Amino acid sequence: MNQDQLRLLLEQVRAGEIEIDGALTRMRHLPFEDLGFAKVDHHRALRHGIPEVIFAKGKTSEQVVAIAETLLEHAPNVLITRADRACADAVLARLPGGDYLPLSGVLRFWRDRHLTGKGKIAVVCAGTSDMPVAEEAQVTAEVMGNQVETIHDIGVAGIHRLMQNRERLTEARVVVVCAGMEGALPSAVGGLVSCPVIAVPTSVGYGASFHGLAALLGMLNSCASNVTVVNIDNGFGAGYVASLINRL
Amino acid sequence: MNQDQLRLLLEQVRAGEIEIDGALTRMRHLPFEDLGFAKVDHHRALRHGIPEVIFAKGKTSEQVVAIAETLLEHAPNVLITRADRACADAVLARLPGGDYLPLSGVLRFWRDRHLTGKGKIAVVCAGTSDMPVAEEAQVTAEVMGNQVETIHDIGVAGIHRLMQNRERLTEARVVVVCAGMEGALPSAVGGLVSCPVIAVPTSVGYGASFHGLAALLGMLNSCASNVTVVNIDNGFGAGYVASLINRL
Amino acid sequence: MNQDQLRLLLEQVRAGEIEIDGALTRMRHLPFEDLGFAKVDHHRALRHGIPEVIFAKGKTSEQVVAIAETLLEHAPNVLITRADRACADAVLARLPGGDYLPLSGVLRFWRDRHLTGKGKIAVVCAGTSDMPVAEEAQVTAEVMGNQVETIHDIGVAGIHRLMQNRERLTEARVVVVCAGMEGALPSAVGGLVSCPVIAVPTSVGYGASFHGLAALLGMLNSCASNVTVVNIDNGFGAGYVASLINRL
Amino acid sequence: MNQDQLRLLLEQVRAGEIEIDGALTRMRHLPFEDLGFAKVDHHRALRHGIPEVIFAKGKTSEQVVAIAETLLEHAPNVLITRADRACADAVLARLPGGDYLPLSGVLRFWRDRHLTGKGKIAVVCAGTSDMPVAEEAQVTAEVMGNQVETIHDIGVAGIHRLMQNRERLTEARVVVVCAGMEGALPSAVGGLVSCPVIAVPTSVGYGASFHGLAALLGMLNSCASNVTVVNIDNGFGAGYVASLINRL
Amino acid sequence: MNQDQLRLLLEQVRAGEIEIDGALTRMRHLPFEDLGFAKVDHHRALRHGIPEVIFAKGKTSEQVVAIAETLLEHAPNVLITRADRACADAVLARLPGGDYLPLSGVLRFWRDRHLTGKGKIAVVCAGTSDMPVAEEAQVTAEVMGNQVETIHDIGVAGIHRLMQNRERLTEARVVVVCAGMEGALPSAVGGLVSCPVIAVPTSVGYGASFHGLAALLGMLNSCASNVTVVNIDNGFGAGYVASLINRL
Amino acid sequence: MNQDQLRLLLEQVRAGEIEIDGALTRMRHLPFEDLGFAKVDHHRALRHGIPEVIFAKGKTSEQVVAIAETLLEHAPNVLITRADRACADAVLARLPGGDYLPLSGVLRFWRDRHLTGKGKIAVVCAGTSDMPVAEEAQVTAEVMGNQVETIHDIGVAGIHRLMQNRERLTEARVVVVCAGMEGALPSAVGGLVSCPVIAVPTSVGYGASFHGLAALLGMLNSCASNVTVVNIDNGFGAGYVASLINRL
Amino acid sequence: MNQDQLRLLLEQVRAGEIEIDGALTRMRHLPFEDLGFAKVDHHRALRHGIPEVIFAKGKTSEQVVAIAETLLEHAPNVLITRADRACADAVLARLPGGDYLPLSGVLRFWRDRHLTGKGKIAVVCAGTSDMPVAEEAQVTAEVMGNQVETIHDIGVAGIHRLMQNRERLTEARVVVVCAGMEGALPSAVGGLVSCPVIAVPTSVGYGASFHGLAALLGMLNSCASNVTVVNIDNGFGAGYVASLINRL
Amino acid sequence: MNQDQLRLLLEQVRAGEIEIDGALTRMRHLPFEDLGFAKVDHHRALRHGIPEVIFAKGKTSEQVVAIAETLLEHAPNVLITRADRACADAVLARLPGGDYLPLSGVLRFWRDRHLTGKGKIAVVCAGTSDMPVAEEAQVTAEVMGNQVETIHDIGVAGIHRLMQNRERLTEARVVVVCAGMEGALPSAVGGLVSCPVIAVPTSVGYGASFHGLAALLGMLNSCASNVTVVNIDNGFGAGYVASLINRL
Repeated sequence: MNQDQLRLLLEQVRAGEIEIDGALTRMRHLPFEDLGFAKVDHHRALRHGIPEVIFAKGKTSEQVVAIAETLLEHAPNVLITRADRACADAVLARLPGGDYLPLSGVLRFWRDRHLTGKGKIAVVCAGTSDMPVAEEAQVTAEVMGNQVETIHDIGVAGIHRLMQNRERLTEARVVVVCAGMEGALPSAVGGLVSCPVIAVPTSVGYGASFHGLAALLGMLNSCASNVTVVNIDNGFGAGYVASLINRL
Repeated sequence: MNQDQLRLLLEQVRAGEIEIDGALTRMRHLPFEDLGFAKVDHHRALRHGIPEVIFAKGKTSEQVVAIAETLLEHAPNVLITRADRACADAVLARLPGGDYLPLSGVLRFWRDRHLTGKGKIAVVCAGTSDMPVAEEAQVTAEVMGNQVETIHDIGVAGIHRLMQNRERLTEARVVVVCAGMEGALPSAVGGLVSCPVIAVPTSVGYGASFHGLAALLGMLNSCASNVTVVNIDNGFGAGYVASLINRL
Repeated sequence: MNQDQLRLLLEQVRAGEIEIDGALTRMRHLPFEDLGFAKVDHHRALRHGIPEVIFAKGKTSEQVVAIAETLLEHAPNVLITRADRACADAVLARLPGGDYLPLSGVLRFWRDRHLTGKGKIAVVCAGTSDMPVAEEAQVTAEVMGNQVETIHDIGVAGIHRLMQNRERLTEARVVVVCAGMEGALPSAVGGLVSCPVIAVPTSVGYGASFHGLAALLGMLNSCASNVTVVNIDNGFGAGYVASLINRL
Repeated sequence: MNQDQLRLLLEQVRAGEIEIDGALTRMRHLPFEDLGFAKVDHHRALRHGIPEVIFAKGKTSEQVVAIAETLLEHAPNVLITRADRACADAVLARLPGGDYLPLSGVLRFWRDRHLTGKGKIAVVCAGTSDMPVAEEAQVTAEVMGNQVETIHDIGVAGIHRLMQNRERLTEARVVVVCAGMEGALPSAVGGLVSCPVIAVPTSVGYGASFHGLAALLGMLNSCASNVTVVNIDNGFGAGYVASLINRL
Repeated sequence: MNQDQLRLLLEQVRAGEIEIDGALTRMRHLPFEDLGFAKVDHHRALRHGIPEVIFAKGKTSEQVVAIAETLLEHAPNVLITRADRACADAVLARLPGGDYLPLSGVLRFWRDRHLTGKGKIAVVCAGTSDMPVAEEAQVTAEVMGNQVETIHDIGVAGIHRLMQNRERLTEARVVVVCAGMEGALPSAVGGLVSCPVIAVPTSVGYGASFHGLAALLGMLNSCASNVTVVNIDNGFGAGYVASLINRL
Repeated sequence: MNQDQLRLLLEQVRAGEIEIDGALTRMRHLPFEDLGFAKVDHHRALRHGIPEVIFAKGKTSEQVVAIAETLLEHAPNVLITRADRACADAVLARLPGGDYLPLSGVLRFWRDRHLTGKGKIAVVCAGTSDMPVAEEAQVTAEVMGNQVETIHDIGVAGIHRLMQNRERLTEARVVVVCAGMEGALPSAVGGLVSCPVIAVPTSVGYGASFHGLAALLGMLNSCASNVTVVNIDNGFGAGYVASLINRL
Repeated sequence: MNQDQLRLLLEQVRAGEIEIDGALTRMRHLPFEDLGFAKVDHHRALRHGIPEVIFAKGKTSEQVVAIAETLLEHAPNVLITRADRACADAVLARLPGGDYLPLSGVLRFWRDRHLTGKGKIAVVCAGTSDMPVAEEAQVTAEVMGNQVETIHDIGVAGIHRLMQNRERLTEARVVVVCAGMEGALPSAVGGLVSCPVIAVPTSVGYGASFHGLAALLGMLNSCASNVTVVNIDNGFGAGYVASLINRL
Repeated sequence: MNQDQLRLLLEQVRAGEIEIDGALTRMRHLPFEDLGFAKVDHHRALRHGIPEVIFAKGKTSEQVVAIAETLLEHAPNVLITRADRACADAVLARLPGGDYLPLSGVLRFWRDRHLTGKGKIAVVCAGTSDMPVAEEAQVTAEVMGNQVETIHDIGVAGIHRLMQNRERLTEARVVVVCAGMEGALPSAVGGLVSCPVIAVPTSVGYGASFHGLAALLGMLNSCASNVTVVNIDNGFGAGYVASLINRL
């Protein structure tokens, strides 16, 4: 049940087409089901107006299938992130209708494709190796009803590439920047645009990158004031918040 | 020069009241002045449509005064953050018209008080000791034209306090949450609201808080998807981004 | 030899049914046997009144089998933790009567099932991925003679789930809380109950969770005063201490 | 309002001496007062049955005085921890009746001295320099109604000292162990007793002690199963949990 | 004794104007003097062809004076770095002829002002607060016989400032870049120039900058291949190596 | 297009043999091509006068082949670093003419073998296990037109080995030193030579080497002033900067 | 050539049985051979009077075989540490006469079995999982001519085991203590004996042991003054230094 | 009571000059006195045959005076380390006869000056700033009856200084090496001598030295096999163990 459906329900209440008790029952009854190992929270969609999400890593395929099955009964759109091929196959064997993106490991059920975002979200990545994270952000924002523009491979050491894409960046209402290694790109992008920038450190790099720690610290210390940060490799979180902002 | 002034200028161009070359000159000529030790960037206001900011820590009072003086010639609003009493006194002796908030160390010149934010920003802090950081966020958002509601001392270990303020939180368009120690409050707030939450880890705590590292890591790993994070004690950055979001 | 057997022995001494020297011999003679590579300490049960435990990781299957065999001669209950399937198979081939729980990797010989705990222990986990650690805690507490109630998947970002389980939590004499990522759940639970809370950080998460470090630091900095912490993923230790407390 | 008072109230309800609504009002009305900067939670005593506590570090003397004044209106016992001499003087000037312990920085209002703990709590420290932390634990446990036995300066490098105090340790229902440097004492104590051990790493040490990190890590990795850990220098937390356990 | 003097000496040997034994004596005799607490190495100048340097921090003023006195007997140029005002006063009272730069704490005896560098060295800093480190690099390079061009306050978040200085940067034979916070400037500069870039992380910043660690890691992970790194705040080292390169 | 070709082009312009517009088109037109996932920057050679480089790790073989194919159309020399055998085979199947060095994982297309370096570069490694990193540095410097002398296995614990190679070291214009474990060799080499030393920490070691962190910190704190540092295992970067220096 | 052979040689010189030049040639000629990838240092035996050692990890089997072959021509005893089964097989196929210990991965050529140590070395380990490291220490000390007594599985949480072995410990001239997890055993042993104790932290543990870091820090902060520390899992180093001490 | 006195006592027992019970009483009676805050362990001298030591940091002057007074009644030699001037004055006012060394902060009561060490101990430091730590080691070794030779300021970057002192180093039976910054000196010294080397990392340095961490890690990873390590700045521990070794 998403917010549009909720609004419809409330209007039915106002119009006398449904009893208040019945409406309340539909709204509040069984806010989450007990699968034994996971509380599936159908109210999350109600509270956030967004698709359901399953983080597949650390769960068995059986657990993912069971959670997905329950979610798909109520939610039009479901994202399964960090799913390996075996997990995706198991889900799709039981629950057809999704498409799997192996680069990012996202399995997407995208049945409600209304655009709810008011502008464009730009998803930028510094290097080719950052593309899986950028794809996770992009897919998340798309499923949440946004038009997304992706710009790949514009690192800080090649500033002219960044400058050539300046116009595309300034057209966006919110920018997601994915970068590993020194993680400097969000600062440079942040200086070019006046909208919020969501920085995603990636684990791309070696040695003193310490699995993304260098990029993370760099972004937290950004001298651009319009930058906030999410966890290392958390493309989903960045796409999610960008979508919330783009709805305002 | 802010965006309104820029729009006026462009309209003068369209109306033929000013030559294009003259307009360009006023816009692009000398985008920053050379004080010898700092490039004062008047275009930053142009690019971001926001007040000028000086981070006072690590600068001498003389440097702060000189930069502030230059900025105040062009910008209606100027924030000086992390200023100790001596620095604030030095600035106010030369540049009256500001007010100093000793808790957060913000010195504020707030001459243009138009509201530009479209909704309310909530600034929440977990404990009394987090108030300096929350104040920095609040003052920043106010100077940037926002109505700000502050809610103090609602830590995670007393969930009923949080629940009692639930309504005030859900009315906000964006929420800033400041918390030290375990930094758990943004997750709890993030689960209650459907808008973006900007988490500010504070250095409040001792021992294994490692000067805010525990709170920072906690917030980066938040299980609430609508949370992004800024640097430890960076109330300014949180207020800044919240303001950008509230303008959308 | 457990405490009950010891008490019986002492009563026999008091009743004159056994010589003091013989009793001392049975009590103190050969407090541990020398297997060549491990001192098996049968007095540990005497000192603690609890089952014997083997931490299987880092030991060969042969070592585990040999230690288990020696322990089972004296102790009614033996736990083998962190055992993979191959190790469990090797032990069960030689020593039938145990049951293996693959989720947590616990192999349990549970021959004395008296309840010694005076109340109920609650074992709570924040997410589905934390269940292996929670199971280790649960099994440990059960083998040590406790009634255990498990509550799964009640994370901080969904506070209403926590509130719905409030009554079950307050009925417990001691609560074990397992959580990864930001590790905020013990603080929230700690604020709801007035009994001791034992927090177990789990290595669930990615990026800046740093294999459980974020959760560990969060729990150590908990603003709830009734929280103590054990090592990352140490479900056994939490179940163990919870059992000691529940005996009081 | 503590639990005894609550029980009295409920009995008055049962006896018809007070209206249910009036009782509810007294119980639930204004669960915390708004001092502007801190929500004083009088229900905390209700929930936990323990004294009120103010962590003074990071608060101004004025804030501490105001919070303490409000708390003392309802709670018989109030602890102010990490108070320097100036803060203690400010509080005592306004609120006489407390005593200040400069070693640990605890200011204690101890008006209700009933013993509620069922046995003895032992507080052990490894070296003379750990005494401030041990005192904080001791005072907390005393104010919470416990008989406390303190044993000082029994480090692991002098095992015979530990052995000489073995009997006193085994008489306790719960043991608090404070140690800096390598933090090995909880493991040794944990092997000697069969009750819960609460380990408090202290920041005593230099160089690679990293302000208590070495002791903290050592305690978290204790090979004794009956050890749980609190934050570095958190004597209060250890005394608090020990008191909760001793009430069972 | 510097390399020019050494060459002169060798030419005198070749011309028969000096005995080989005498030359050897002057070259090798007493390569360092014993002041009791420090071996003053006059051969260092011989080996490196550069001025003598004293790192004043951690030495008493008396030690610095004694070492400086010995060095000035042989070396025309002496740098004393990290000297506070008291130390500088003590040295100048005994050894006039130096000038003290309080911003960087460098005390400079600059008696041989030949230019030995073949081109220009550019010293760039990201913000006003980085100027002390930049000054240390600048002074070092100047004393070592180089023409130095300094460019202040061109951070990554204001790329247009960087672009405006592009020409001055490309004229340099080697560039020193000092930056704190996220330390992104060396990558951006490295992408603009084709000469070696020496990156100096500074301890400017707060919170997750961890006293320069964030900048250090960022620079080590630079995506620009022409960047090497020195220690945090090590302006001297950067100026030193830049000078060695500029002599080639 | 390298700098020599550019100079030829400019001379054709001066001689009137080519139109300025045509020259500009060739120089500036299409500075990078869009492969969909990577911006191939042909101007990088123009800016730096060096070969193109692909960092293979984290890219699919298909991505590496595609990028290499595009680069080889313009650049005479291409380096592919951190390529495993499968990736190298895939590239060579499509693009013959390269040679693969399995120790370091470098795949090298070396079609333009002009010497551009003015002196000799020495590449030194402390132990046999450091040879892969040293080889990466050596190959990079060779492809960039330098004469390289390699000296293996001269660790600090055997100073006489170092002394025996002193002459070869002092003949070099720049020295690259690769060392793991304690990373002390750059300091010792730096004290022997008067040229720039580029230190490469390697991940060789175990335990407290923390994957190269110990060597990295050691080199950053070198007491030899002529040492700069690159990332752990970054032989390529060291060879690259050494080549830039050797061209001066 | 070991020290005994050297002494014989010098006596031959004194007796006129060998020319000084010939002696010098034998002593100094070709102090190490060049295998292309490793300088084999035959003087190391001369300097240290001990066997040759090859650290196999990170070297190819071919490299290990070649180095071992060269060493065995001069040295009677050769240790190859951290060798996996494949490497050991390759060496033994070419160089028979060694024996391989798979627990520790040591391959030992032990042809000179004179006892040179003056007393007994005790090698103690805290748990069964520490035995590989202890074995490496034991084998090293044995090959270096020492009588070694091993005591397994005497952890700090079972102090009575330690006390029962007290006599055996006090008979040793030097004690090596291997322990993982909290690493407390060296402190306890150090308090019992008056000889030097060499502590070896092991990587045994999980979670907050951080691969041996907790044990390492604990040992460095030992409150026993007779403890020194070597690298994590460095049984070889401990056995080596223990042997040097036992020769005195 | 030291070992010589103990031997005398035992000889008196053998000679029948003292009753066994009386001897036992003198030996075992009151092994430590209870000062209320510290157990003074007079048996420590018995066990270790060495002077008593008080670590003054973190203790009040009153505590130090009281402990010292008790110790001096039994022990001829007492060391008070890390004492500031005020503490030293307080002790000397009450307990004359000691001498205070302000560089290292050692207060020494040296009444028994017998030489018990069999050879010479060399104490080496890398730079002038390491001298306080070296002095602590030197004084400790002297008070424990050793002849100590100190060699100052022989860093790795000036290898010829090290080589010039080679002979003095090889004459020692054990070498203590104090070094900060990269901590490379122990490796170089370890390669020159065949005796045990005790490495003391010092907190000398700045930036990425992280208060001695870089030196500590470097020393733990030393490629010289005869090196063991003590805590950062722990000159006392190094002098102590060196003395134990020199007695063998």
